[in-house]
Amino acid sequence: MADYVYGPGRTHLFVPGPVNIPDPVIRAMNRQNEDYRSPAVPALTKILLEDVKKIFKTTTGTPFIIPTTGTGAWESALTNTLSPGDRIVSFLIGQFSLLWIDQQQRLGFNVDVVESDWGYGADLAVLEAKLRQDTAHTIKAVAIVHNETATGVTNNLAAVRKLLDAYRHPALVLVDGVSSICALDFRMDEWGVDVALTGSQKALSMPTGLGIVCASPKALEASKTAKSVRVFFDWKDYLKFYKMGTYWPYTPSIQLLYGLRTALDLLFEEGLDNVFKRHTRLGTATRLAVEAWGLKNCTQKEEWFSDTVTAVVVPPYIDSAEIVKHAWKRYNLSLGLGLNKVAGKVFRIGHLGNLNELQLLGCLSGVEMVLKDVGYPVKLGSGVAAAAAYLSNSTPLIPSRI
Amino acid sequence: MADYVYGPGRTHLFVPGPVNIPDPVIRAMNRQNEDYRSPAVPALTKILLEDVKKIFKTTTGTPFIIPTTGTGAWESALTNTLSPGDRIVSFLIGQFSLLWIDQQQRLGFNVDVVESDWGYGADLAVLEAKLRQDTAHTIKAVAIVHNETATGVTNNLAAVRKLLDAYRHPALVLVDGVSSICALDFRMDEWGVDVALTGSQKALSMPTGLGIVCASPKALEASKTAKSVRVFFDWKDYLKFYKMGTYWPYTPSIQLLYGLRTALDLLFEEGLDNVFKRHTRLGTATRLAVEAWGLKNCTQKEEWFSDTVTAVVVPPYIDSAEIVKHAWKRYNLSLGLGLNKVAGKVFRIGHLGNLNELQLLGCLSGVEMVLKDVGYPVKLGSGVAAAAAYLSNSTPLIPSRI
Amino acid sequence: MADYVYGPGRTHLFVPGPVNIPDPVIRAMNRQNEDYRSPAVPALTKILLEDVKKIFKTTTGTPFIIPTTGTGAWESALTNTLSPGDRIVSFLIGQFSLLWIDQQQRLGFNVDVVESDWGYGADLAVLEAKLRQDTAHTIKAVAIVHNETATGVTNNLAAVRKLLDAYRHPALVLVDGVSSICALDFRMDEWGVDVALTGSQKALSMPTGLGIVCASPKALEASKTAKSVRVFFDWKDYLKFYKMGTYWPYTPSIQLLYGLRTALDLLFEEGLDNVFKRHTRLGTATRLAVEAWGLKNCTQKEEWFSDTVTAVVVPPYIDSAEIVKHAWKRYNLSLGLGLNKVAGKVFRIGHLGNLNELQLLGCLSGVEMVLKDVGYPVKLGSGVAAAAAYLSNSTPLIPSRI
Amino acid sequence: MADYVYGPGRTHLFVPGPVNIPDPVIRAMNRQNEDYRSPAVPALTKILLEDVKKIFKTTTGTPFIIPTTGTGAWESALTNTLSPGDRIVSFLIGQFSLLWIDQQQRLGFNVDVVESDWGYGADLAVLEAKLRQDTAHTIKAVAIVHNETATGVTNNLAAVRKLLDAYRHPALVLVDGVSSICALDFRMDEWGVDVALTGSQKALSMPTGLGIVCASPKALEASKTAKSVRVFFDWKDYLKFYKMGTYWPYTPSIQLLYGLRTALDLLFEEGLDNVFKRHTRLGTATRLAVEAWGLKNCTQKEEWFSDTVTAVVVPPYIDSAEIVKHAWKRYNLSLGLGLNKVAGKVFRIGHLGNLNELQLLGCLSGVEMVLKDVGYPVKLGSGVAAAAAYLSNSTPLIPSRI
Repeated sequence: MADYVYGPGRTHLFVPGPVNIPDPVIRAMNRQNEDYRSPAVPALTKILLEDVKKIFKTTTGTPFIIPTTGTGAWESALTNTLSPGDRIVSFLIGQFSLLWIDQQQRLGFNVDVVESDWGYGADLAVLEAKLRQDTAHTIKAVAIVHNETATGVTNNLAAVRKLLDAYRHPALVLVDGVSSICALDFRMDEWGVDVALTGSQKALSMPTGLGIVCASPKALEASKTAKSVRVFFDWKDYLKFYKMGTYWPYTPSIQLLYGLRTALDLLFEEGLDNVFKRHTRLGTATRLAVEAWGLKNCTQKEEWFSDTVTAVVVPPYIDSAEIVKHAWKRYNLSLGLGLNKVAGKVFRIGHLGNLNELQLLGCLSGVEMVLKDVGYPVKLGSGVAAAAAYLSNSTPLIPSRI
Repeated sequence: MADYVYGPGRTHLFVPGPVNIPDPVIRAMNRQNEDYRSPAVPALTKILLEDVKKIFKTTTGTPFIIPTTGTGAWESALTNTLSPGDRIVSFLIGQFSLLWIDQQQRLGFNVDVVESDWGYGADLAVLEAKLRQDTAHTIKAVAIVHNETATGVTNNLAAVRKLLDAYRHPALVLVDGVSSICALDFRMDEWGVDVALTGSQKALSMPTGLGIVCASPKALEASKTAKSVRVFFDWKDYLKFYKMGTYWPYTPSIQLLYGLRTALDLLFEEGLDNVFKRHTRLGTATRLAVEAWGLKNCTQKEEWFSDTVTAVVVPPYIDSAEIVKHAWKRYNLSLGLGLNKVAGKVFRIGHLGNLNELQLLGCLSGVEMVLKDVGYPVKLGSGVAAAAAYLSNSTPLIPSRI
Repeated sequence: MADYVYGPGRTHLFVPGPVNIPDPVIRAMNRQNEDYRSPAVPALTKILLEDVKKIFKTTTGTPFIIPTTGTGAWESALTNTLSPGDRIVSFLIGQFSLLWIDQQQRLGFNVDVVESDWGYGADLAVLEAKLRQDTAHTIKAVAIVHNETATGVTNNLAAVRKLLDAYRHPALVLVDGVSSICALDFRMDEWGVDVALTGSQKALSMPTGLGIVCASPKALEASKTAKSVRVFFDWKDYLKFYKMGTYWPYTPSIQLLYGLRTALDLLFEEGLDNVFKRHTRLGTATRLAVEAWGLKNCTQKEEWFSDTVTAVVVPPYIDSAEIVKHAWKRYNLSLGLGLNKVAGKVFRIGHLGNLNELQLLGCLSGVEMVLKDVGYPVKLGSGVAAAAAYLSNSTPLIPSRI
Repeated sequence: MADYVYGPGRTHLFVPGPVNIPDPVIRAMNRQNEDYRSPAVPALTKILLEDVKKIFKTTTGTPFIIPTTGTGAWESALTNTLSPGDRIVSFLIGQFSLLWIDQQQRLGFNVDVVESDWGYGADLAVLEAKLRQDTAHTIKAVAIVHNETATGVTNNLAAVRKLLDAYRHPALVLVDGVSSICALDFRMDEWGVDVALTGSQKALSMPTGLGIVCASPKALEASKTAKSVRVFFDWKDYLKFYKMGTYWPYTPSIQLLYGLRTALDLLFEEGLDNVFKRHTRLGTATRLAVEAWGLKNCTQKEEWFSDTVTAVVVPPYIDSAEIVKHAWKRYNLSLGLGLNKVAGKVFRIGHLGNLNELQLLGCLSGVEMVLKDVGYPVKLGSGVAAAAAYLSNSTPLIPSRI
C-alpha cells in the first residue's frame, strides 16, 4: 500500500496543526469535481461567505476564502492593505511571529520589531511607548499573532485595541488567528481587528488548503490605495467576482467548499462558545498533567496560557526532539517539535480542533510512557490522573443529540 | 445531519464487536457497485478464497464467504453438516453459546447441553465422560465457542481435539470463532476443527456483512448426506459456482470484497502471529488495569482469560448498565453490556481488532472516570498506570514501515 | 493497485443489478462501525422501519431489514408463512422465477408450477382455473415475481389480486419485487400483497447486503403457525427485539443503515412517482433504440414490457455472450448475460436505479458499437437518435434544487 | 442535504477543468490529516518530486508542488525568474493568455503583447521578427500558453524553441501547460522550456489545490537574481527545505499528496503516451461530431486543433450561454461557456483527463439534444454516429488488467 503509516490502530495526532478532521467533514469531501461556473457552486459560496463571518465574530467584515495556506493568508493581509516601506509594529514572541516578520521584511515593509523572550506574550508596554511617540501616525499597522503556536502563548488582543483607542491611533490591526480562530474566543468587530486570518487545517479541523482572511471596512478602504504588488492574493479580483455573483476569480476546490460547509455546521451545532469552553477544559487538563509530571510550561505567565497548544519544557539532559521521534515510532503519537530557539528544549501538545476528553487522555498516557522511555522519572498515570480529576468534575458541555 | 452521534471528537468504540475499522479498509470500500459476473470479481474472489484460509490456519479447508452475520454462519455450519435429530454436545458458558444452543434446538437437533457457571470455560470432564460412554457414536458433533464474548472466556480447543482423539470419536467439531479468529491463535488443521466460522465485524475489523465459514474435507463430505433443510446457506450452491469459476450463487457485496482484500493485506502485513501477540498485550494490560481498580474479572481462571474481551464484575451496589450508559453519554465511550445472567453485574471492554496502546489507554482512562462518576471509589490514573507500566516495558511488535 | 478494473474513465454499469450507487449514498456509508446497542442505532432504525414502508406503499405492513441478499429474502418470505408440504402456485417465466421455485421445492413445499414461455408473463388463465377448482383452499400461497429480471417481463399484480378476490380465495400472495420495488409502481396494500421483498442493490441503488421484506398483518398471523424450520430468517426474533426497542437480533451493518437512510432521502426527494416516471422514460427510450437497431425485445407483449430491464434478442448468427464480453473488455460497459434458456440468445440492458438520460445514451452508443464490432449490420447513431428524440420531447420530471 | 446538485444519476462533467477524478484518486484522498513533519510525509514527498518530473518529460528540472491554483503557479513562474520592468514577449490568443498577460502587467513587467485573432495560434512570425531585432537581448522571457483553454488552440512549442535557437536568443521560455500537461505531449527538456506549470484539477484529474511548477537549471539560476517581490511563491524557501529533507516550507495538504501519488500511478500504469493517444482519439471524435452537426470549430487551422478542449461556434441566432445553461439544468451536463470576445458565440466541450469513449458519446448525445432544444436544426444521432464510427474503428489503446 502507498501508505507510510505506522502499525495497527489509529494515529494519535496531537501536533498543533494539521489537526484531526471530524468524520462528517471527511465524508462531505469524498466527492467528484463540479463545474464551479454552474449555479450550484456560487449558491454554496454565497452562504459560506455569510457563515464564515461568524467564526470571526464580525458582521461588517468581508471574508476571502483563498486557495492557499496560512503563509499565503499572511501575504494577502499585508499586500492588500500596505505599501512598500510602510511602518509595521510587529511582535516577535516565537517561531511563527518570526516567520511572519520575515515575510513582512521580504515584502518590503519597514518592520519595527518588538521582541519578547520566547514564552512571553507581546510586550504591550513597548507598543504603548511607540504609540505615544507616534503622533505623526507613521505606524501604518500593528501585526500580531493571536496565539503563538511555537510557545503556546495567547496574546491579549483586547488590550491592543484599548491602547490604540487610548492614543486615538489609526493604525490597522492585522491579526494572525491561525491557531486561535474557532478554538479561542475571537471578536473581530469588538476588538477592532482590521484583518484577521486563519487556515483550514487548524481549529476548523479540515485539510490544508484554505486561507480564510477577513477584512474590516477600513482594511477594504486601505486596499484601494495600497501599492504592494499582488495578483493572486489581490482582494480586488475577488470583489469583482463577488459583484458578478460568480464569486471565484480562479478555480476553487469543490471538495474543500463542501468540507467547509460541514465544518461550519459542526461548529455551529456545538455552539462556538461551547467549542471555546471545550478548548479551555482540554487546555487546562493538559496543563494539570504537565504540572503533575513535574515539568514546566514554556509559557511564563498564566495570562498567556494557550488553550490550543502547550509547549512543555524538558529537563536539560533530555532532547525534546527524541521525545517527538520516539512518540511517533513507538506509540503512533504525533507531537510538535520545539522550533528554532526552543528546539530540543520543548515539545508541544496540540489540543485544538475536533477533540474530546478520552482522545486527550490517550495522548497524555502516551506522553507519560515516552517520558519514561527517554529517562525522565515520571510517575506513570500521574498526569492522566490530574487531568481526569479535573475533566470528570467539570460540567459536560455537549448535549447529546439523542 | 443524519448522524445520531454524540459530540465532538472521535467515538471510542470498545464493544467486543463491531470493532474499529482501519482507515485503509474504509477507503477500499468507498466505491461503486460492479458487475459481479464480469471477469474482475471472480478473479478477486479466487484470490480471496485462497487467502482467507490463512486466517483459519488451514490448507485443506474450503471457505465460504456468505453475505450474512455470525448467526447465519452458525446456521450454515449446522445445517450443512447435520440432519434433524442428530445429537450435538454443546457447551453453555455464556450468552453467545446459549444463543447458538437455542438455534441448534430450533433447527431440530438433539442438543446435549453441558453447562458451566458463567465465567467458567467448557467443562471438558463432562465431555470426556460423554465420549467414553458413546461407543455407539451417537454424538454427531461437538459445538463449542472458541471465545465466549459475554464472559471473556477462551476455551481450550486443543484439549477438545485431544479428547476426541483419545476416544477415537468421529464427531465433527464445530467451532464458533466469531470473537477469536484473527485475534487469538486458531489452528483449524492442527486442532482438527471441521467447521470454523467468524464474522467480518469482529477481529477482521470490517463492517458487518460477511459470515466466513470454513469446512474441513470431513465436513464437506458430511454435507453430502446432511438432511437439514437449507437453500440460502447451502454449501452445494457455492461449490457449484466454484466449479464454474464464477463463484457466487447470488450477488455479493462488491464493497465488502474489496474491504476483505485490504483487511487481509493489513493482517498479513502485520503478521498474524504479531496480531495475536498484540492482542495478548492489550488483553494483559486491560486485566492489569481491572486489578488496579480493585475489581474482579468475570473469568474465573487464568487459563480462560480472553485476549479479545474482558468482562469486569462491578460491586453489588452498582448497576453495570449505568456504567455503559454513562460512558456513552458523557465520554463518547462504547462499552459492552452485561448480558442475561450477568446483566447489571458486569460490563465488558472489547479489545479486539484494529487497536493500539494509546487507544486502549484512552479507553481505560474513560472507564476510570465513569467508575468514579457512578460512585465506585477508584483511584484515577491507577488502571492507566498499571497498564502503561506493562505496555511500555513489553517489546513493541510492529516494525515501522519507514 | 488491488483493482481489477479496466482502463481510464468510468465503468458503465448497465446490468440489472447491482446498479449504480448515488454519490451521496457512497458518502453516507463512508464511515466507522458503531455500537448497535447504543441509543443512536435504535433511534435510526426506528425511523428507517417507518420510512421503508413507503417504498412498499403500505401502512399496515411490518418490514424486516435483514442482512442478506434477495435469495435470503425469498427464504424469509417462504419459511415464515408456510409449513412443509404446503401447496404454492408459482409462476415460472424466466431464470429468477425458476430459482425461486427451486428454492420452494428444496424447502419442502408442494409447488404447483405454472410455466410460460420465456418472454411471456405469468399465465393468469391457469391461475384462474386453479382457483376455481380449489374450493377446499389447498392453495396456501401464490408466489410471483413482479418483474422477471431474466426476460424483462413485468407481471400484472393487480390482476392476480382481482382473481383471488373474485374467487374469495384466502391464499397468501408472496411477491418478489427485487427488480421492481423503487423503480416500478408497487402497491402492497392496494394489491393485497402479503409478503413483498427487495434487495438493496437493485432499485434502492445501494450495495448488496440488505434483504428488505415486508409482511402484511395476515402474513404476520400466518407466521405464528408456520412450521418451516428457521432461525436466522425468523421474523419472531425481529419482533421480539422490535418490542424491546433495540430492534436487532444480531449485528446490523451500520454502514448500510446510514446508506439506506440516504437512499430513501434521495427517493423521497425526487418523489417515488417521479422515480417511476423516470424509469418509464428510460425504459421506453431503450425499447425505441432496440427497435431502431432492427432487433427484437425478448418480451412478447407490450403489456409486459419492463421499465427496469430490457432483454434484447440477437440474430441466430451472433452469440449474445460475445456481446457482453466485448462490451466489458472494449468499452468498459457492463451488460447482462442471457441466462439458461435464453443464454447466447439475448443480452440485457439494465436501466433501473440511479440513472439519467445521458448515462443511458452513453450506454446505447456503446451497444451500437458493440453490435457493429460483432458483425451485426447496425446503423451507428440510429438507436441513440430514436432514444434521444423521445427523451428530449418528454417532460423533464426532475425539478432543479437551485 | 447540503448538495446543490441536479437530479438523479451522474453529473456529466465536460468543462475543460476541473475534470472528472478517477475513483481510486477519490479513495486515496478519503483520509485524515497527518503530521507533515513526521518521517512519513517527507518520504512520500521525495518520491512524488521524482515522479512528477516525468509528466514534464524532464530529468534536469526541479519541481515545486505548491498549494495554490494555476493563477498562483503563473505568479510563481514569473516572480521567481524575472525582475520588475523585464521585457516579456507574450502571446494573446484567448481569455487565459489574456489573464496571464494581465498578471504580467500588474506584476510590473514590460509586456510585449503579440496578439492573434481568437481561434488562431501564437503568431510566431512576429516572434521571429522581434527576436531578429533583439540583438541586445532585451527580451528576458517568452511567455506562452501551450493550450489556450478558451478557444481550443494548441500552440507549437517546438517551433518556439527552434526560433530561439535560430537566433541564439537566451530568453527564458515560460509555458502555461495548465490544460495540456498530462493530456498532450509535453517535452520540457527537448523543447528547452525553462518554467512549465500545471494545476491539479486539469489533466492530472485531481481536485483543485496544487499548482505544479517545474524549473529548468537556467530558471533556477535566474531565480537567484530575480528581484520580483515574493514570499509565498518563493522557490528559495522550498529549496531550503528540500535540502533539509523536510520538503515543506508550510503545511501541505496530506490528502492531495496521496491523491497525487495515485493520480501519477494511474497515468504511469496507462502509460503517458497512451494517455496522449487517448486524448487524440477523444478530441478527433469530438471534432467529427461537430462537423456532423454542421457547426464550426472556433480553432481556425487543423495544426492548432486541441485534443483537450473543443470550442464550438454557434450560429448567430443562438446564444451559446443558453446552451450551457440548458445543458446543465435539463441534462445534468456541464459544458464550458464562451469567454470574453467569444462570449455567447462559442460553447466548449472539455475532453481532457480521466475519460473514456462512452462518457464522451453520452456527452455528445446530450449536446445534440441541447442543440435541438435551443432551435438548431441538428439531426439527432448524427454527431454520435460520426464519433462512434471513428472510435470503434481505432485501435483500443488500453490493455485490460485481467
